[in-house]
Amino acid sequence: MSEELGIKTKRADNFSDWYLEVVRKADFIDQRSPIKGFDVITPWGYAVWEKIHQHFDILLKKNNVSNAYFPLFIPEKLIRKEEDHFEGFKAEAFAVTEAGGEKLEEMLYVRPTSETIMYYMYALWIRSYKDLPLKINQWCNVVRFDTKGTKPFIRGREFLWQEGHTAHATKSDAEEQIENSVHMYLESMKLQAIEPLILVRPKSDTFAGANYSVVFDTLTQDGKVVQGPGTHMLGQHFSKPFGIEFLDEEGKKKNVWQTSWGMTTRQLGIIVMQHGDDKGAVLPPAISPIQVVLVPILFSGKEEKLIGACKDVKEKLEKIGIRAHLDDRDYKAGFKFNHWELRGVPLRIEIGPRDMEAGKITVVKRIDGEKKQIEQNDLAKIKVMLDEIQEAMIKKSKDFLEENITDANDIKDIKDSFGFSRANWCGSAECEKNIKFETGGYEIRGTLYKKAESPTGKCIFCGSDAKHVVYIAKAY
Amino acid sequence: MSEELGIKTKRADNFSDWYLEVVRKADFIDQRSPIKGFDVITPWGYAVWEKIHQHFDILLKKNNVSNAYFPLFIPEKLIRKEEDHFEGFKAEAFAVTEAGGEKLEEMLYVRPTSETIMYYMYALWIRSYKDLPLKINQWCNVVRFDTKGTKPFIRGREFLWQEGHTAHATKSDAEEQIENSVHMYLESMKLQAIEPLILVRPKSDTFAGANYSVVFDTLTQDGKVVQGPGTHMLGQHFSKPFGIEFLDEEGKKKNVWQTSWGMTTRQLGIIVMQHGDDKGAVLPPAISPIQVVLVPILFSGKEEKLIGACKDVKEKLEKIGIRAHLDDRDYKAGFKFNHWELRGVPLRIEIGPRDMEAGKITVVKRIDGEKKQIEQNDLAKIKVMLDEIQEAMIKKSKDFLEENITDANDIKDIKDSFGFSRANWCGSAECEKNIKFETGGYEIRGTLYKKAESPTGKCIFCGSDAKHVVYIAKAY
Repeated sequence: MSEELGIKTKRADNFSDWYLEVVRKADFIDQRSPIKGFDVITPWGYAVWEKIHQHFDILLKKNNVSNAYFPLFIPEKLIRKEEDHFEGFKAEAFAVTEAGGEKLEEMLYVRPTSETIMYYMYALWIRSYKDLPLKINQWCNVVRFDTKGTKPFIRGREFLWQEGHTAHATKSDAEEQIENSVHMYLESMKLQAIEPLILVRPKSDTFAGANYSVVFDTLTQDGKVVQGPGTHMLGQHFSKPFGIEFLDEEGKKKNVWQTSWGMTTRQLGIIVMQHGDDKGAVLPPAISPIQVVLVPILFSGKEEKLIGACKDVKEKLEKIGIRAHLDDRDYKAGFKFNHWELRGVPLRIEIGPRDMEAGKITVVKRIDGEKKQIEQNDLAKIKVMLDEIQEAMIKKSKDFLEENITDANDIKDIKDSFGFSRANWCGSAECEKNIKFETGGYEIRGTLYKKAESPTGKCIFCGSDAKHVVYIAKAY
Repeated sequence: MSEELGIKTKRADNFSDWYLEVVRKADFIDQRSPIKGFDVITPWGYAVWEKIHQHFDILLKKNNVSNAYFPLFIPEKLIRKEEDHFEGFKAEAFAVTEAGGEKLEEMLYVRPTSETIMYYMYALWIRSYKDLPLKINQWCNVVRFDTKGTKPFIRGREFLWQEGHTAHATKSDAEEQIENSVHMYLESMKLQAIEPLILVRPKSDTFAGANYSVVFDTLTQDGKVVQGPGTHMLGQHFSKPFGIEFLDEEGKKKNVWQTSWGMTTRQLGIIVMQHGDDKGAVLPPAISPIQVVLVPILFSGKEEKLIGACKDVKEKLEKIGIRAHLDDRDYKAGFKFNHWELRGVPLRIEIGPRDMEAGKITVVKRIDGEKKQIEQNDLAKIKVMLDEIQEAMIKKSKDFLEENITDANDIKDIKDSFGFSRANWCGSAECEKNIKFETGGYEIRGTLYKKAESPTGKCIFCGSDAKHVVYIAKAY
């Protein structure tokens, strides 16, 4: 895979072009597939996703969620069962109409999400309160015919995700699950070093078939938002048409209460947009496939001994649980530095003949380029450095979010604003539309989840009594 | 998920019905999805697949294979590029013709396998001998419109798999890869306690677009074969139409040599068919999601103390790397015994009040029902027992295969035979067809891989000079 090194575009000049250049050159994704919007997740990007996946899978199991696998295709009549859901997804669905060259009797949709196919089975599985809660997750691919254009990871027509689907005996059990899902995602965000704003979406942007949606919004370096993971309170919207019923402890028949929640490969784009710099991606140690790359600084002469010393350091790092990689390819050191900086590996260790003799190594931090020498027999310091980098990246993300929430009292404050504007809103859909129109695309993203805020003035658009404090931003 | 316990059908009475009953009741699969042949892999079955996946993924990484993810859809013109490949798959392909309610300009196939979409990208990625070998794997779902009927895991229309795809500078490098893939699968088979017969398929059953296919055949308890993992020497069949070229060390342009290889969720069916008994599934410890289940034998009185003792044993087992689970549900012990026997958990530990006082536990082996008491402070014995069970299951599979290969000198010997018949064959496609017809469906499965056998007589069908020693069996 012939390599082009170095990012030509600066973030400050053109953030969008910079992003496209980074995700391609850092081996995250290749957009040159033969079908528009169906990108190839290339090895380095996929390896980062594996790390996110592995960590989240452990969380799922700790929270008694079982993995399973449901069919890719959903018969048309099934997806039509919940009306709002069908309305929301029909324009995005790819349809299979032929198999083996013959027309199918019924059209099959390729899953854009799996509520309907999973809940068909839930109706067969759930009989008694003893079967509840039922908590199932699936890791899979989904496709959506997004007509708004494509952007790697952020707006693709196929993505990988986990989708959790739970069924509960009571509304409050379902609400507890919403909170539990939010906590799982918060833990995952810590590893990804992403500080989210957790919002309850306005009705206009609630998941099709849900009572309400709780969604993680994240800020990019150019001041826009990208939606991260989210969880939906489905209430009994699906359990009624799908007949998911159970006998409670008194023998009364009831419909279950449900939630669904998902996190996708879009996170890869969010991480690059959040932490990347003019040299490429910058990965948090917790999810970097390689945490430390070792580059031998070779001069003619003692190569073998030097490579041996590098191997020795690598093994010692692995013994203390660090993911280390020795780059002993036949390339110049400068080429290798660029190669791994581009991919965002948190630490680089350089070992030259002089270091070797002196029992030292040189450590370079990807996050700020800081260089220092440490003793070869003091590798525990590397672990400390990785933890510090993780914390620093989390703090950076948190500070950036906090610094970029601004109170807006006039619609003019929002136009061309950077980050989130906090404003009062009367709650009318008309004002919501007008705000978007008048500001050139800034949207009401929602109200804070579980942190009620009281309006401090009148609706920013119509001036009548405000009901909510909302966060407004421009989305990718 | 209201539970039905106990398998009603005996293997000896009706193996096929027994299998269907086991995979459903042991929580491996649910066939009641709304689309025929698209089954739901339920939590226990999926957890077994996760174990197989995890182990194999480690092998992939050790062998320098990178994971990536390629699009689900393949444009028609791309899948047509390699003629044999298209001929082989067109009758099985599901086609997407609409998106968002509008007809697509070009028909998209839902991947039945990913050679074509991957190699389109390989042509973009490979430029120089330095880019070789390129070894990429993907874990994904594939769909095939199999018209021969469906059988859970064995013949389904959607399955999960890994597909490895490699590109090499020379034919011999590609052949080395075939050997390497065979070795990886052999390692995985050890964990699954499956002894395969590794065969080179006859031309009639070679992968569409390959020079030859090396496939693992496995024997079921009713004497039939099921195909397990396989690897295909693709030669330059794809690299020519797809233009996958590289400059060699002398600067000459050449086409790469390729291999592909896959293992699917069919393994779950193979394991049940190989090791299951009249009580349900029997899982090898290496891939059982739970290796030891603890069941407290409760009498009124000292419950809490007993549960405490169970937890203590569980933690100690986990500390020595054993996957242990405490079943403290509010059910009777007998119910729990059945529940875990059905699912095939290798060891059950029972702890009653008397055991507790005496510092003992009772261990029951799933494989043969053998019971013994051991000291609570001697849990290392459990690890030894698990290893012994694994070895015993491997040996059982090996012995069963070896005992069921019989030399056949007459076509009559094959009809109604059990297992494999070894016979001489002239190599003609006509004799091959006649053998299948005359025996009522017994097929030439192939010749031994890397273990040349010389014919000892004339062709079993036509009596002319034999060229090959072949293995003949009836397949599922």
